[in-house]
Amino acid sequence: MSLIVQKFGGTSVADFERIRHVAKRVKKTYDQGNDVVVILSAMAGVTDNLLKMAAQVSDSPDKRELDVLLATGEQTTAALLSMTLKSMNYPARSLLGYQAAVITNHSHGNARIIDIGPDRINSMLNDRTIVIVAGFQGCDKDGNITTLGRGGSDTSAVAIAAALKADVCEIYTDVSGIYTADPNICEKAQKINEISYDEMLNMASLGANVLQIRSVGFAKKYNIPVHVRSSFNEEEGTMVVNENSGMERLVVSAVTHNKDEARITLKKVPDQPGIAAKIFSPISKAGIVIDMIIQNTRPGGETDLTFTVPNADYETALEIEKKVAEKIGAEVVFGDQNIAKVSVIGVGMKNHSGVASTMFNALADENINIIMISTSEIRISCIIEEKYTELAVRVLHTTFGLDKE
Amino acid sequence: MSLIVQKFGGTSVADFERIRHVAKRVKKTYDQGNDVVVILSAMAGVTDNLLKMAAQVSDSPDKRELDVLLATGEQTTAALLSMTLKSMNYPARSLLGYQAAVITNHSHGNARIIDIGPDRINSMLNDRTIVIVAGFQGCDKDGNITTLGRGGSDTSAVAIAAALKADVCEIYTDVSGIYTADPNICEKAQKINEISYDEMLNMASLGANVLQIRSVGFAKKYNIPVHVRSSFNEEEGTMVVNENSGMERLVVSAVTHNKDEARITLKKVPDQPGIAAKIFSPISKAGIVIDMIIQNTRPGGETDLTFTVPNADYETALEIEKKVAEKIGAEVVFGDQNIAKVSVIGVGMKNHSGVASTMFNALADENINIIMISTSEIRISCIIEEKYTELAVRVLHTTFGLDKE
Repeated sequence: MSLIVQKFGGTSVADFERIRHVAKRVKKTYDQGNDVVVILSAMAGVTDNLLKMAAQVSDSPDKRELDVLLATGEQTTAALLSMTLKSMNYPARSLLGYQAAVITNHSHGNARIIDIGPDRINSMLNDRTIVIVAGFQGCDKDGNITTLGRGGSDTSAVAIAAALKADVCEIYTDVSGIYTADPNICEKAQKINEISYDEMLNMASLGANVLQIRSVGFAKKYNIPVHVRSSFNEEEGTMVVNENSGMERLVVSAVTHNKDEARITLKKVPDQPGIAAKIFSPISKAGIVIDMIIQNTRPGGETDLTFTVPNADYETALEIEKKVAEKIGAEVVFGDQNIAKVSVIGVGMKNHSGVASTMFNALADENINIIMISTSEIRISCIIEEKYTELAVRVLHTTFGLDKE
Repeated sequence: MSLIVQKFGGTSVADFERIRHVAKRVKKTYDQGNDVVVILSAMAGVTDNLLKMAAQVSDSPDKRELDVLLATGEQTTAALLSMTLKSMNYPARSLLGYQAAVITNHSHGNARIIDIGPDRINSMLNDRTIVIVAGFQGCDKDGNITTLGRGGSDTSAVAIAAALKADVCEIYTDVSGIYTADPNICEKAQKINEISYDEMLNMASLGANVLQIRSVGFAKKYNIPVHVRSSFNEEEGTMVVNENSGMERLVVSAVTHNKDEARITLKKVPDQPGIAAKIFSPISKAGIVIDMIIQNTRPGGETDLTFTVPNADYETALEIEKKVAEKIGAEVVFGDQNIAKVSVIGVGMKNHSGVASTMFNALADENINIIMISTSEIRISCIIEEKYTELAVRVLHTTFGLDKE
């Protein structure tokens, strides 16, 4: 008998039929003798609709009030699932964020969980109640409703699993788990049975579609096994766990790609102290997140500086940098939206030299030019021309022995 | 400078345009230097839609969870109005039922307010914040969300006004106030400027459309002046206040009618102790509310018993009584849906004899037969044939001097 936290995403509760399906899934786990805590997202599309409502009354809706509005989405699904289970004669009960004592800081719209009081849930579990918690929401110490940002229900689930010392946190979604590459462009991609928290944290593009990256940090900190699996079948999915010696140890665990990048280059930047701040501060003030930065020193005390931003922010960033270049006396600002990032990820890299050169050679063999490179302890990323993305992913997938039989 | 509680009903917040209109109304009251607490209903139609959602997942939705679901309706409008006022640079803030410390008993779906803690609202008012409270909802002592039943936002408003010792509770609705009769059938009906709590309590049919009757009981208990007025114009509406000598004193204040009644008669009921319980218990067990009961004793220890029920419950009640009649040996059960109730109401009646006979004579002069009669201290009601309803209302309106010039 275990304590199991099950989180169902928006597509899993998108309509009444699917809510009934979720109820059956929960019932099955409960009938096996487990204690069950369920965390729910809003029905798919509902959060966007609520944002549109807010936009109808205000150009920049008050963040506190927006949280009050958005919280209704998960409140609705929590009530509906509890009703469904009750009508099946199961002892279910919904809790909203504040009722489940999910205490956050005051950052409306992107709040961080600072504490979860497990007493009420534990006492309900002791009565063999199925506890249904509205995800994505909490409250600050003054009792104001807060929300945790996009995908926040994953973080709700993992944080509650941590507070309850749950045996596992199951994340039910519309895919069967984490794959070695995107199956849409690499038909030999396989589901990964087990992956470490650190690898997940480095797999933004492959992972973020199925699991909010912030929740992985939580899972790592409290060592909560996270089971990413499909709500539409009974297959085992991917276990995200602490790195351990028992893991099947491949050098590279997955190949990821991201076409949503754009590159901006400033040439002949004067090599003076504080110049980087002048270039990047206006970008971050505009709320734009920079991914990679490369600096080449030229002879004569000038440098070329290249960085990448999300495609959606490209125009804004380019305008900003044109003004910056004029001010600091840099020569040219030009950019390129037709780029992509391919990455290989694996904790096995730590103990293997030569992964980078294997990667570069594999790309060179296909005449794929590498524009930028960045590395971390367990990841190597290359910026290439966008048109080579699919080819690069397939080649790397084969090169690092990830193809399924 | 006053403390004013303003309640806006579902039609007043039915869309974004109307929410903006409400915001302007609130702003105007605030700008005059008043402290303002606003109570909101859900957008018109939303509560019905939520009930339909619940019906999709359960034939008899769990009442606790239904309250969690229904509470999202007022949560939505409270957030939207606060956002609107904030975007107009007014210091507004929403509070849900539990945040406003609206404590109720445990009767989900029809909870009674047992306490309201005014501290949080008072401290917000001290900061000159406009407090927007989600109506219709509260929480029980265990922190579960409860709702107050249909029209419950009126009760929220009056109860909060009482807790805050507000100077007035304004109920904004889609009509201009309470009328001496339904203007749709009596064109000489006039708006009543001032009416007593007791008269309101007796005016179910005229009053309930604009003010939940339960809220009037609250207003009377705590002596809160209630101002029923239109949200679509600036006219003064109807003040519902304590009976006082300063009131313009008419014998009759209003004529009401109700076509939603049906009559059931049992003949030759054995006159035995406990027989009434046998007849009426199955009806109340079926959740049907009986309005009037009349019993005529016949020679020989048998009686005829006639009572009225809402039209919607007529078929059910008739089936029940057919079985009862067989069991207790009564002779015939027959019914009639083509009846209506007309009533005259007025605190002035207390000090005037002859109101009843004036009423009966006026109806007789028009050849309107009276089928049943019931009276209270300040009300006389007659059941008549439904086809005479409009005529009866107009005749009584003229007879008791209510026609406008």
